[in-house]
Amino acid sequence: MIIDKLIDKIKELENPTVVGLDPRLNFIPDFITEKYYLKYGYTPKAVAKSFYKFNKHIIDAIYDIVPAVKPQIAMYERYGIQGLKAYAKTCEYAKKKGLIVIGDIKRSDISSTAEAYCDGHIGKVKIGEEEYSSFEQDFITLNPYLGSDSVTPYLQACKDYEKGLFILAKTSNPNSGEIQDLVVDEKTIYQTVGLYIEKWGEELVGKYGYSSVGAVVGATHPEQAKKLRELLPHTFFLVPGYGAQGGKAEDLAVCFKDGIGAIVNSSRGIIAAHTKEQYKSAFTDEHDFANASRQACIDMKNDLRRCID
Amino acid sequence: MIIDKLIDKIKELENPTVVGLDPRLNFIPDFITEKYYLKYGYTPKAVAKSFYKFNKHIIDAIYDIVPAVKPQIAMYERYGIQGLKAYAKTCEYAKKKGLIVIGDIKRSDISSTAEAYCDGHIGKVKIGEEEYSSFEQDFITLNPYLGSDSVTPYLQACKDYEKGLFILAKTSNPNSGEIQDLVVDEKTIYQTVGLYIEKWGEELVGKYGYSSVGAVVGATHPEQAKKLRELLPHTFFLVPGYGAQGGKAEDLAVCFKDGIGAIVNSSRGIIAAHTKEQYKSAFTDEHDFANASRQACIDMKNDLRRCID
Repeated sequence: MIIDKLIDKIKELENPTVVGLDPRLNFIPDFITEKYYLKYGYTPKAVAKSFYKFNKHIIDAIYDIVPAVKPQIAMYERYGIQGLKAYAKTCEYAKKKGLIVIGDIKRSDISSTAEAYCDGHIGKVKIGEEEYSSFEQDFITLNPYLGSDSVTPYLQACKDYEKGLFILAKTSNPNSGEIQDLVVDEKTIYQTVGLYIEKWGEELVGKYGYSSVGAVVGATHPEQAKKLRELLPHTFFLVPGYGAQGGKAEDLAVCFKDGIGAIVNSSRGIIAAHTKEQYKSAFTDEHDFANASRQACIDMKNDLRRCID
Repeated sequence: MIIDKLIDKIKELENPTVVGLDPRLNFIPDFITEKYYLKYGYTPKAVAKSFYKFNKHIIDAIYDIVPAVKPQIAMYERYGIQGLKAYAKTCEYAKKKGLIVIGDIKRSDISSTAEAYCDGHIGKVKIGEEEYSSFEQDFITLNPYLGSDSVTPYLQACKDYEKGLFILAKTSNPNSGEIQDLVVDEKTIYQTVGLYIEKWGEELVGKYGYSSVGAVVGATHPEQAKKLRELLPHTFFLVPGYGAQGGKAEDLAVCFKDGIGAIVNSSRGIIAAHTKEQYKSAFTDEHDFANASRQACIDMKNDLRRCID
């Protein structure tokens, strides 16, 4: 069960952190981009090569201290086919280094279309007698607005291929309440979604009592997260919003129970650490910029552990 | 304004049909797949080449009688990078033939991540002094569960590049009601979303009174569609669910007002017409299989017009 593997790794490393691999041109060190601009011109190919190289530096610097990475596919899809190649290669490389890969794809579609996404992202495609994995991910994120038809097509693949899902429940953005906070029969929409998530995960509960069908629960709404933690005893939380978006370790401690129950994402706070004054002393040569990310991971781990245990 | 172009084309052709380009291996004629299997083996590349060739046949057979096509990206993403290449090329070719392209991507993310999807799908990316379009689409579909933060980042690009959106309101699948039909303050969630759509589109209303920010409203819920039509006077509807999913022309007539107001999608009903007994007489040689799709388009047009006018 993939959720057990994730929790095992979190326990082993004493670190419930997932590093968001969301590269942007504006914080990729010049020594990387300039090399590829020289070779390929100012092209999507040069950007894609830069993204992959940048991610490789980051992964090499953190793979032994964090359990998972979460590449955000939008950052790659922005650059079309070339960008998506960098996404696929990043997932592959992270897996090769032993990291659990959470593909932040937030796809949302139904029945045969959901099956197509499922085949591509966590299942396999069959061509003649050959089978292929199109993208190498352990978990993917999904959007539940279309109802069970947009989630159940993935459950068989979760069983067959030892994969998992994180379904959007309560997101971290300022306007998330417009739909998610509406109240029906004394339950908010995100609580209703949460209860569906518990149900969808029923047959995928592992040894720690958590299922491989988790929920995305923003760190920016601690009161709401606290209630969800009580309401959804078998649902593991993926928690965005720490750091850059304002979520504090004190606040998101409510997502945990007995030291487990959630994994907390940080993207820019870690991968762009080299641009921050605070981490300038973590590296002397620009080629070692990723040491700043390593230090930021250690600081985040200590910050979280201080509040969780 | 792209919505005006779409309505102009619908009026000119007297046909409010969009053809869903959702290819699957099981209905691609053998003469296409065999050629590519021979050349590339049983590989994603062979599938991608087959998909593009298949789509080209369909587009060539219908581009002069329908205003738009709607490729469903999941069907391509299933086959990874190779599949996505076929998606990109299909969009390009359809544009070249003068068709309006509705990219059915149903993406859902917020702020800077939404900006990344926006740049990739309807905007441009800037690399050095160069600008690139990653995918060639006129409209894209989006999922609103995350609230305004997941839609407003696209509105400027709609203005700058003459593009449009279709936001999921009430979808056509059986379980769509689990979240969408919940009632808050005497309004269903899909009506609440609908009212947001009206608001998001306020600055993008064109000469026919409809905005370039439309709504996805399933053909399988006529009563609900009727109320939405009244509630959302400036919102153009993209209507899935005709044919294969059970939506009938009689039922979806409520999505129209004075002969306009919606465009109706059919995917398998048109692109797999050659596999149906009913259309066997439309072609004599397998290379002309797409004539069946042309005939199916004509039949659909007549079916719709019978009920709309």
